[in-house]
Amino acid sequence: MKETLRRDAERAARAAIRAVLPEDAVRRALAGMAFPGRVYLIAAGKAAPRMARAALSVLTVPVTEGLVISKYGHFDGPIGPLRCFEAGHPVPDENSVRAGEEALRLTEDLREDDTVLFLLSGGGSALFEKPLIPLAELQGLTRQLLACGADIVEINSIRKRLSALKGGKFAAHCAPAKVEAVVLSDILGDPLDSIASGPVSPDSATCAEALAIAEKYKLHLSPEAEACLRLETPKELGNVHARVVGSVRELCRAAGEACRAMGYETVFLTDRLDCEAREAGRFLAAVLRSHAEEGRKLAFLAGGETVVHLTGQGLGGRNQELALAAAEGLRGLKNACLLSLGSDGTDGPTDAAGGYVDGDSFDALREKGLVPHEILRNNDAYHALRAMGGLIVTGPTGTNVNDLCLGLLDGE
Amino acid sequence: MKETLRRDAERAARAAIRAVLPEDAVRRALAGMAFPGRVYLIAAGKAAPRMARAALSVLTVPVTEGLVISKYGHFDGPIGPLRCFEAGHPVPDENSVRAGEEALRLTEDLREDDTVLFLLSGGGSALFEKPLIPLAELQGLTRQLLACGADIVEINSIRKRLSALKGGKFAAHCAPAKVEAVVLSDILGDPLDSIASGPVSPDSATCAEALAIAEKYKLHLSPEAEACLRLETPKELGNVHARVVGSVRELCRAAGEACRAMGYETVFLTDRLDCEAREAGRFLAAVLRSHAEEGRKLAFLAGGETVVHLTGQGLGGRNQELALAAAEGLRGLKNACLLSLGSDGTDGPTDAAGGYVDGDSFDALREKGLVPHEILRNNDAYHALRAMGGLIVTGPTGTNVNDLCLGLLDGE
Repeated sequence: MKETLRRDAERAARAAIRAVLPEDAVRRALAGMAFPGRVYLIAAGKAAPRMARAALSVLTVPVTEGLVISKYGHFDGPIGPLRCFEAGHPVPDENSVRAGEEALRLTEDLREDDTVLFLLSGGGSALFEKPLIPLAELQGLTRQLLACGADIVEINSIRKRLSALKGGKFAAHCAPAKVEAVVLSDILGDPLDSIASGPVSPDSATCAEALAIAEKYKLHLSPEAEACLRLETPKELGNVHARVVGSVRELCRAAGEACRAMGYETVFLTDRLDCEAREAGRFLAAVLRSHAEEGRKLAFLAGGETVVHLTGQGLGGRNQELALAAAEGLRGLKNACLLSLGSDGTDGPTDAAGGYVDGDSFDALREKGLVPHEILRNNDAYHALRAMGGLIVTGPTGTNVNDLCLGLLDGE
Repeated sequence: MKETLRRDAERAARAAIRAVLPEDAVRRALAGMAFPGRVYLIAAGKAAPRMARAALSVLTVPVTEGLVISKYGHFDGPIGPLRCFEAGHPVPDENSVRAGEEALRLTEDLREDDTVLFLLSGGGSALFEKPLIPLAELQGLTRQLLACGADIVEINSIRKRLSALKGGKFAAHCAPAKVEAVVLSDILGDPLDSIASGPVSPDSATCAEALAIAEKYKLHLSPEAEACLRLETPKELGNVHARVVGSVRELCRAAGEACRAMGYETVFLTDRLDCEAREAGRFLAAVLRSHAEEGRKLAFLAGGETVVHLTGQGLGGRNQELALAAAEGLRGLKNACLLSLGSDGTDGPTDAAGGYVDGDSFDALREKGLVPHEILRNNDAYHALRAMGGLIVTGPTGTNVNDLCLGLLDGE
């Protein structure tokens, strides 16, 4: 039964990742779409090359002109007639500004029946930029924010106001043309105004909130930057149609569908998991153990992005820690397993996407002299999981919509 | 709607506690029970007086003779013809030994058609004892085990072997009489051989395991004590019928039933929750937020006993920390709440049983200058919850079957 469980869990994980690949998501979104006038394509983010290529393959009209903006090394050849820009991430560089200026130039003086097809994925915030303050100052502020523990929504609340593109300003610039936005979300809850700092979304944050964040993290601001924080962002945009076509919710949904096809009843727990990785693992193990004797085939689904606080010098990632932490709670169960993996195929600074444990894992580790809570204290989940065949390795998947945790119970 | 949510949550919590009160649990267990011969009643544990009184009120036959053994201050008057013993907890004292010896004397030379009605609740391990080593040494070992972070199952694995009563030895002593055991469980998963160190249960732990625990915690053992650890405990008992009539599972079940009666669909998550309290709160908030827009009336149930690692000097308890930690995840939701409480009516060294938060709590705290994660760092959930009316106060309930967390979503 153990082999069946692992096979089922890996099969569901593969199906989930397939559903959120840029190609599939973009094709679903654009299939059959018609446009009244000219089409300008702008793709920005880590998945931009793959999203742009998929768009060209499915669009039934020619693209008038277009840009694809992604990280250094993320291109593997030309993409039809589109111009490609490599730029810096997570801190924007001069190429980010060049790409941002080109995007603004391309979308100047558009007509009302024109469409800007905007393909957005994670990373877009840094990759295309037109700062309202000197670039060096923006870079310094970005580094300050990344270092001080501000969350991504807070970081973006600041960046929006220091940019001529973010916080809805790019969409305002495109008007009166329509903006058709297709979004792969890498932020829990899919807040459109936070993904890539929301270039085509009304900004839900106010000046007061932005100033409070600057205060909270004691940011060093020039008078020029502070003036930007006091400038209100667009709160309404009439020319935008935006859709999230891939996100952790879709990842969970597809995993659930795959489980149902294999005969499991599914329980969708959350797509907002954001607690400490190891505690999420214990929680999920407790859920599995509590249902283990019901004789049902059950699949529990939780998506999100847990956190790890480093206390040791070992090797691992949040998904590997989550799985390893579940081993003790599952100990001895004959019909339970837990798999946790990053949809991008990487987990921490390792070559694994995540980890897998079942009722035998705890004792298998013990036989090797490995005790999960001691390993976790050293943040060394990678070596422990490797020692008992518990690593999940997929290689880079080409998408990034957070993580999937899947707990299975086989009825018997 | 907020008032309705809180009313519903408190109503469900009250119904849950009612279902696990010693009186209700014992009456359900003994109603209509017949006995062929003489009946000897022995009640031991924190709930012993209330369990014994309930038994006398429902039994249709007279009790030949009986003992009630509980903590100092837990009696409020005589209990029919039964003799009452007050004793030490959590470290056994001379009165614990006097009570244990009396229990052994009472159950000597019984006949096959006699019944020992054994009413057991948490605390029984310390309260009635007959050590195989000098009492002072047992007390010292108990203190060592309590101080070193050993869990209750580990502590009891040692205590069983140092006792003439524990680890099934009391039941073996009662043979050939039948032992009818009625148990209120205070340990997750209801391991009958661990509750009160299992006086009437075959011991699942082996000598090797007991010795490994002694080694793990570097216990100082006399040669006499070490010899006891090497003596095997009963692995089979033919004269015992034991039932867990109240436990955290029953607590969750009754809460779920009350929720269903109020129109909620219920999702039973676990009765084994044992992770860090604040992380469980974040996990549960993520679950609620992920379902908040489905328009369903949903109740999520989780029972167990979370843990708190103290890092500050504040006042609180695990249920209060769990609730407070959920405030940020619920922020802004109009239709969600979370209640967490200890079934014994106490949570940490406070006069509260637990805490309650909803979508307004986070901002209500902020208005008072209180930031949940800072408060949690100081372990001061009590004062924060009190400041915004989030304490749940029940007073002592007279039972103890761990904790209940209840997350509600009102459809609208």
